[in-house]
Amino acid sequence: MPKIDLAAIPVRTGSGYPGGHAAKMNGRSQQSLTGPGGLTQFGANIVTLAPGALSSLRHWHEQQDEFLVVIKGTCTLVDDTGKTPLAVGECAAFPAGDPNGHHITNETDTDAQFVVVGTRTPTEVAHYSDVDMRVSVADGEFNFTRRDGTPFGDHPE
Amino acid sequence: MPKIDLAAIPVRTGSGYPGGHAAKMNGRSQQSLTGPGGLTQFGANIVTLAPGALSSLRHWHEQQDEFLVVIKGTCTLVDDTGKTPLAVGECAAFPAGDPNGHHITNETDTDAQFVVVGTRTPTEVAHYSDVDMRVSVADGEFNFTRRDGTPFGDHPE
Repeated sequence: MPKIDLAAIPVRTGSGYPGGHAAKMNGRSQQSLTGPGGLTQFGANIVTLAPGALSSLRHWHEQQDEFLVVIKGTCTLVDDTGKTPLAVGECAAFPAGDPNGHHITNETDTDAQFVVVGTRTPTEVAHYSDVDMRVSVADGEFNFTRRDGTPFGDHPE
Repeated sequence: MPKIDLAAIPVRTGSGYPGGHAAKMNGRSQQSLTGPGGLTQFGANIVTLAPGALSSLRHWHEQQDEFLVVIKGTCTLVDDTGKTPLAVGECAAFPAGDPNGHHITNETDTDAQFVVVGTRTPTEVAHYSDVDMRVSVADGEFNFTRRDGTPFGDHPE
């Protein structure tokens, strides 16, 4: 059945960010549509942001195109150019390799929600704009380090 | 600017379908977000369906994953299993190679709208479930034929 049964998909909270960064993701929850939809070439997630929550730390991808569309409430896109509100049905795109770090925030007092799509690639590196962090991904494993490649354990947040 | 300026994107109507099939697409309009968003790995379109309109003839893709999310009104997903309503924020996925032909219809009396994402591939073949037609795509050229490969010109609709 092509319709995705959202009620059957687990809602994930928390964050794999190291150090003190994980707590910054409080109020964000996600449902992965990729496996339930049988998708293998790109992934899709519904992201729900409680008032004040962030979608991620501001980041950009080396290899993967990213695209989002708002489906509930008002989201705020934050990137190098500033803040831009996005209403239901409005979209944003982030081509691979464009070093314009971005994330979505919820500056309203009700939940906001968007669907985000990203290409699936065997490996990936993402860079964080506002903190000294990068992540390399291979075989589904996320390896967060400082920008200079040193592990977080040596320099606790 | 990652936000996509929908007001600046041309609205396309009409259809490249051969024979009498093109007229079946009356009431469908589309905006391509792919170029304006700088996307190259997958494409994204906003599709608007007037009351009674169809998104396409019912079809499936050999190589390309497809995914959609409703952003306005109520859409009806039609596939081999029947009809399924999709409200704003509801999603459907169509993995490459799954021969479950699908399209979206608008059975309401107001416009409905969805965003559809599909992988970009150098070539593609799509099959139509309800009419004797297939299409092969290469170098951006669409070649519609009967299922047996004979051109439409020899067998007018």
